[in-house]
Amino acid sequence: MDDLIKGDRVVIKENISLGKNVILENDVYIDSGAIIRDHVHIKRGTYIGSQCILGEYTGDFFRDRTVRSHPLVIGEESVIRSGTIIYGDTTIGSHFQTGHRATIREKNQIGHHVRIGTLSDIQHSCQIGNYVNLHSNVFLGEETEIEDYVWLFPGVTVTNDPTPPSNIIQGVKIQSYASIAAKALLLPGVTICSHSLVGAGAVVTKNVPEKAVVVGNPAKIVADIDEIQSRDTKSNAYPWPLHFSRGMPWETVGFEEWLKEQQTDDECGRNGR
Amino acid sequence: MDDLIKGDRVVIKENISLGKNVILENDVYIDSGAIIRDHVHIKRGTYIGSQCILGEYTGDFFRDRTVRSHPLVIGEESVIRSGTIIYGDTTIGSHFQTGHRATIREKNQIGHHVRIGTLSDIQHSCQIGNYVNLHSNVFLGEETEIEDYVWLFPGVTVTNDPTPPSNIIQGVKIQSYASIAAKALLLPGVTICSHSLVGAGAVVTKNVPEKAVVVGNPAKIVADIDEIQSRDTKSNAYPWPLHFSRGMPWETVGFEEWLKEQQTDDECGRNGR
Amino acid sequence: MDDLIKGDRVVIKENISLGKNVILENDVYIDSGAIIRDHVHIKRGTYIGSQCILGEYTGDFFRDRTVRSHPLVIGEESVIRSGTIIYGDTTIGSHFQTGHRATIREKNQIGHHVRIGTLSDIQHSCQIGNYVNLHSNVFLGEETEIEDYVWLFPGVTVTNDPTPPSNIIQGVKIQSYASIAAKALLLPGVTICSHSLVGAGAVVTKNVPEKAVVVGNPAKIVADIDEIQSRDTKSNAYPWPLHFSRGMPWETVGFEEWLKEQQTDDECGRNGR
Repeated sequence: MDDLIKGDRVVIKENISLGKNVILENDVYIDSGAIIRDHVHIKRGTYIGSQCILGEYTGDFFRDRTVRSHPLVIGEESVIRSGTIIYGDTTIGSHFQTGHRATIREKNQIGHHVRIGTLSDIQHSCQIGNYVNLHSNVFLGEETEIEDYVWLFPGVTVTNDPTPPSNIIQGVKIQSYASIAAKALLLPGVTICSHSLVGAGAVVTKNVPEKAVVVGNPAKIVADIDEIQSRDTKSNAYPWPLHFSRGMPWETVGFEEWLKEQQTDDECGRNGR
Repeated sequence: MDDLIKGDRVVIKENISLGKNVILENDVYIDSGAIIRDHVHIKRGTYIGSQCILGEYTGDFFRDRTVRSHPLVIGEESVIRSGTIIYGDTTIGSHFQTGHRATIREKNQIGHHVRIGTLSDIQHSCQIGNYVNLHSNVFLGEETEIEDYVWLFPGVTVTNDPTPPSNIIQGVKIQSYASIAAKALLLPGVTICSHSLVGAGAVVTKNVPEKAVVVGNPAKIVADIDEIQSRDTKSNAYPWPLHFSRGMPWETVGFEEWLKEQQTDDECGRNGR
Repeated sequence: MDDLIKGDRVVIKENISLGKNVILENDVYIDSGAIIRDHVHIKRGTYIGSQCILGEYTGDFFRDRTVRSHPLVIGEESVIRSGTIIYGDTTIGSHFQTGHRATIREKNQIGHHVRIGTLSDIQHSCQIGNYVNLHSNVFLGEETEIEDYVWLFPGVTVTNDPTPPSNIIQGVKIQSYASIAAKALLLPGVTICSHSLVGAGAVVTKNVPEKAVVVGNPAKIVADIDEIQSRDTKSNAYPWPLHFSRGMPWETVGFEEWLKEQQTDDECGRNGR
């Protein structure tokens, strides 16, 4: 516990291992059996679940069992559920949430209000925007890029090697508001354009155009999102932000009003995206 | 360990965390590194593996870090293998078995003689009957309903949102004796009827009739189960209970005899289903 | 810690459980929270990550809670990453690596220089050769046989029961140099021949001939591997050993030179395969 910097009202439960150069800000809670290795900075109000391992060793540790500096920063008001493993050289925004036993490797950039579900496995060097939701058991190959407001549902797999095994990495790009349904498989180098919908179980071998709906193996365009009706209301189900707002920044004002505000901000040069 | 009620011959190994209002009946065994939170009742003869977390916190804990009462009951003679996480507000019958690192969320009703395999992930508010077998890495979306004597093989995914993301939940229903082979994907709201067989890798978009065999993406009916021959005996492989009885209630008398007994019971109003 | 045989420079961190008849050779490192049960032999220079469970109980333990002898041997210079569970009656060669939370059951034979990725789940009685790479979340059903230099990418599932549920096991055979891309599904009893390529998401229902490329559900032959070009170099991508050598025995001399050496050895009766 050398060099521990500890804020007020920090709770540290039993059977914890704490490394060097750890910063625990105010109201951080470390639950029983967690392991915090060196150079981990946990911001205000964040909960670290039982049996989590933070700042997990990268490959260089095993060469000579010397810990090098690979800082990990986890933002404010986050909930890291039990058994999650996060490596160093990674910065994560505020209001982050994980399910149980998620694994997040090194050199990842993760925005604010991101959720990464139970058993999801994020390889190194990915970029994940804000308000991105990865459900259970999502696999992201290295160098995946995900913009804001994207959904990946249970069992989605994102690959990156076009001729495996090889030394070529062609990361997938997923643009804002895209929704990738359960167990879809995205092949190396494809771009999933904004507001598109990849159907459950689809095997995506080509780029998916904006607002397109693709299904099948290999995936083919079968509709435009404007043609998909909600089973409940029998009105348009997409674009989804018009009908779904839980946990989204437009939760109080609605998507259209919120979007106008964003554009106003753009013109004023303030909060634009 | 406040208010611990402990039966005879209870074994509690090292590095354990024990919450409040825990009941450990006779012959319960808690292996090293397990975490038992508040309001957990473990019945007679049950083994809790290393690093299990029972009575895991639900979302309300993170609001103010106050533990509310979400009781968990695990039935007699169960084997909860290492690393399994089970939430509260859940009741599980006797002779329950899990593989390693299964996750079972809140508000689940689970019958007797159920097995849930390694890495399987059961979302909240599911109903699972008796003698149901989920193999490794099965995902059940919330509000899935599974009757008795059902099999889900490795990697099966059961979804529930027809237009993701949305606020609509249409749980899948799986009737008794259905067999869902490896990596099948069941789309929201489908019913898999009794004694049917969903082939490995099938993507099921419509209801599957009784005794039908479906395969492909999207799944199509290709046969009746009576047409499927065993590779071993070259005789009919289905209905499977005629040929497979390990761990089933007809293990000693055979399926047909057992079924007659059940019907007799029905007419007498005693043990009928 | 009865009967512990411990070499020089062995590191044992905090919150460890150590069983009986454990052998830790020189330079072994046991990280915090690991559980080593009885009859585990860890060879020189191997790292055991936090929260690993080695020598995990097999089914016979639960009958009467008596530990029987099921020895586990892990070879030299291995890296077992955190949360990995390995049962007994298993022998693993040198330079073995696992990702996080891999599960390896009993009666497995695993060669040298094998990697088994995060969340992968190896059922019992499999045979795995040398220089085999299983990426994240690979499932191997019991009695799978894998020769040397084989790749299984994320989410590959290998089954074994042709008419589930049944008492028939028809293990899959994967010959040397085969590459099975992400999320492919191999049906019971198929043989994947040498140097073939199973495309991402393929559902393989028949044997795959040598050097064939198969894709789709059900998988069909679409090319010979000699027809697949690298997206980078626009030259042939396969046979992959000509272009990829990281971690392979031909890393320094190249595949063709190495292959000649192997054949020379064969004729001299020394190191041949």
